[in-house]
Amino acid sequence: MTGPVIVALDAMGGDHAPDIVVQGAAIAMRRLPNTRFILFGDKARLDPLVARHKKLRERFQVHHTDERVADDAKPSAALRAGRNSSMRLAIDAVGEGKADCVVSAGNTGALMAMARFSLKMFPGIDRPAMASILPSQRGESVMLDLGANLECDAENLVQFALMGEMFARTVLGQKHPSVGLLNVGSEDMKGHEAVRGAATRLRSPGSPINFFGFIEGDDIGAGTVDVVVTDGWTGNVALKTAEGTARLVTDFFRASFRHSLTARIGYLFAASALAKLRKRLDPRQYNGAVFLGLNGIAVKSHGGTDALGFANAIGVAVDMRNNGFLDLIRDGLQRLKDLAPAPASAN
Amino acid sequence: MTGPVIVALDAMGGDHAPDIVVQGAAIAMRRLPNTRFILFGDKARLDPLVARHKKLRERFQVHHTDERVADDAKPSAALRAGRNSSMRLAIDAVGEGKADCVVSAGNTGALMAMARFSLKMFPGIDRPAMASILPSQRGESVMLDLGANLECDAENLVQFALMGEMFARTVLGQKHPSVGLLNVGSEDMKGHEAVRGAATRLRSPGSPINFFGFIEGDDIGAGTVDVVVTDGWTGNVALKTAEGTARLVTDFFRASFRHSLTARIGYLFAASALAKLRKRLDPRQYNGAVFLGLNGIAVKSHGGTDALGFANAIGVAVDMRNNGFLDLIRDGLQRLKDLAPAPASAN
Repeated sequence: MTGPVIVALDAMGGDHAPDIVVQGAAIAMRRLPNTRFILFGDKARLDPLVARHKKLRERFQVHHTDERVADDAKPSAALRAGRNSSMRLAIDAVGEGKADCVVSAGNTGALMAMARFSLKMFPGIDRPAMASILPSQRGESVMLDLGANLECDAENLVQFALMGEMFARTVLGQKHPSVGLLNVGSEDMKGHEAVRGAATRLRSPGSPINFFGFIEGDDIGAGTVDVVVTDGWTGNVALKTAEGTARLVTDFFRASFRHSLTARIGYLFAASALAKLRKRLDPRQYNGAVFLGLNGIAVKSHGGTDALGFANAIGVAVDMRNNGFLDLIRDGLQRLKDLAPAPASAN
Repeated sequence: MTGPVIVALDAMGGDHAPDIVVQGAAIAMRRLPNTRFILFGDKARLDPLVARHKKLRERFQVHHTDERVADDAKPSAALRAGRNSSMRLAIDAVGEGKADCVVSAGNTGALMAMARFSLKMFPGIDRPAMASILPSQRGESVMLDLGANLECDAENLVQFALMGEMFARTVLGQKHPSVGLLNVGSEDMKGHEAVRGAATRLRSPGSPINFFGFIEGDDIGAGTVDVVVTDGWTGNVALKTAEGTARLVTDFFRASFRHSLTARIGYLFAASALAKLRKRLDPRQYNGAVFLGLNGIAVKSHGGTDALGFANAIGVAVDMRNNGFLDLIRDGLQRLKDLAPAPASAN
């Protein structure tokens, strides 16, 4: 992969756009020397922000548009009326080969709908999936789908397993990531038809996937596998439950330090250690829910993130491109096709 | 409710039975003066354990049986071959009116199968549900189903809502608990048919349930509602994900205290505050997953719990009995029946 990586940015998407988009891109550019950016958005607002980064200015290009997708726009309405929005133009840049990947902190549903329409599905993948990186006791792991498809059949889950594995390789640098299917028990007969069918297929000899087997909810935090595969309903509930629990436990800790004078003194001594912990649990570290399955690389940043979080989302997109994510998917799909066909019950 | 409460105990169920069962009962008896216990199990092992609690001995009665349900027994096999097991005899004591409630730390699947067979379903309830108490930012809440039914229709969820609300009233002492349906978004059109149908029904004028609406995974830890209602698949994943995340964050905290000398000193000062926190998150505090929907009160304790955890599980069973759980369900079902029938799409 020679030549610079071109990143298309929806400069107007997200709660703190366009400021954090430009700042985030500036951080990412320092980390990733071989990148260039096309910023889609309001030139009058973007030019002064870009001007602050003198050394980097030549690696920014601003593409003006007045329009943006509202945060509360319905995906169908955005798709119909948002053809000149900053989000759509950024996506189209990838579809037209003018950029290598797109990052937006805007409306998730609209981004998904537009990316699917403009980039199309990757040949051989039936449904897109949202994936994210999560902290675990063994480091970091990937979970998908986080909400793109509430109901999935066995074949969808097999495809998610493939995409999740390739994502872990290209973004986390794992050599041979293990993949687990989320279930309510580890025995073979547990769970509904889709998970059982997917497990049968992933266990086939010759499968390109390092399949661990079924895992349960507590295996997510334990880091039992590198890639957690589930349908979008379950993944969405699990992700948000984990976020809520992390907040609960952290608040309990904080409250317990307030509870007596000696505890307050303890807090002073422990402050730097606790700051490190906060950093480890910092959601910005795990920012960037990727849409997998598209014929192009599209990363969604949290809408409320700051410049650092946005820079991390850019990093995810650039890693996927530099490490050949789409090529790996193509190869993996071929190897899946060469396997025995899915049993009839799997769908 | 006059007269003592009679609690039937499966003295041989669980990893540390019968010791922790007898010790747990002794703790519960001190807390709950008006209780008596029938212990089902091996008399030769139980008599010396009971003899240690001189003052309480007269409130214990031992019913001998040689048999017990193995921890790895299949529910169907236990149901067929376990007619004289300690678990089955304890359940039967409730079915025959000799006891008011039963508590077991044994094989969950066998307990569910036997309790359903022996006690039958509560008239008007179609499916049993497993419920548990969880810590939240606002205190404590109830979640169900935790795995008894992987797939549920709208009417099942409505019945779970009723049972969960009555459980929160009788065990947590909440006057008018709020009930939320777990979903992947809070808008009306979100989620699958069963949750949308259940929401429509719970919103009907005259519903006996204080229905909050849809909630998401992070609302569990936040304590947005007092009762979280979902199907057994989702509830099982959410519960275990929460447990795994709590362990992850707690371990991160512990590691951050080890990380420098000043942090270690901080730990010494904060030790008593952290001990309080541990107590607050102690799974033993939330021990006792209750089987709701049966025509009788049956509580499942964690298999690996200790005497204190087992005593808490007994406390849950006795609270349900003393506060008229089954009567409340009967009244609530009548009021649900008086509502408009569920829309056709709800099933």
